[in-house]
Amino acid sequence: MKENTVFIGNKKLMNYVLAIVTQFNSTDASEVVVKARGRAISTAVDVVEVTKNRFLPDITYKDIKIGTETAKREDGSELKVSSIEIVLSRPKKKEAEKAEEQKAEA
Amino acid sequence: MKENTVFIGNKKLMNYVLAIVTQFNSTDASEVVVKARGRAISTAVDVVEVTKNRFLPDITYKDIKIGTETAKREDGSELKVSSIEIVLSRPKKKEAEKAEEQKAEA
Repeated sequence: MKENTVFIGNKKLMNYVLAIVTQFNSTDASEVVVKARGRAISTAVDVVEVTKNRFLPDITYKDIKIGTETAKREDGSELKVSSIEIVLSRPKKKEAEKAEEQKAEA
Repeated sequence: MKENTVFIGNKKLMNYVLAIVTQFNSTDASEVVVKARGRAISTAVDVVEVTKNRFLPDITYKDIKIGTETAKREDGSELKVSSIEIVLSRPKKKEAEKAEEQKAEA
């Protein structure tokens, strides 16, 4: 599962959007997890919204978790930092087709 | 329900933490909604985590929604901005007491 995680840092937004789209398409993944800490949390929300609104409209937010992580400063002291984890889910192609068929039959 | 909403802007973190604690205590509310847009999203997560970890450990995140809102610039052009809505829920005192009693009986 670790390979389907995208960590948001301080690169440009589109880098992360493309990373997510690539993970969904190249690995045929049904889930990609987007993680961020501190100031990057806002960017993470921008990234998933752009991904959903402009590239993969069929994805849903399966889960959104927020929490606090403990990081270590260079001098060894501890720093608490907020974190977010957004689980993006895309229906598998087969399931999507099945759903379409069921709609057509109904 | 509107009165139990806290909008996160660019004041200091503790202002918002106190606003949430006050709403829960003074209005005997069972839910407080925290909303933020753009860069303030990171602050909103900090605010709810500090509230939960240091002041109201019994609250839960009942719902976390993210989305995109359209704002207008001064010149009339449109700007898309990400948003977050975090619903904080606190068990009512009576319910909490009931739960305690049930635990004691079990």
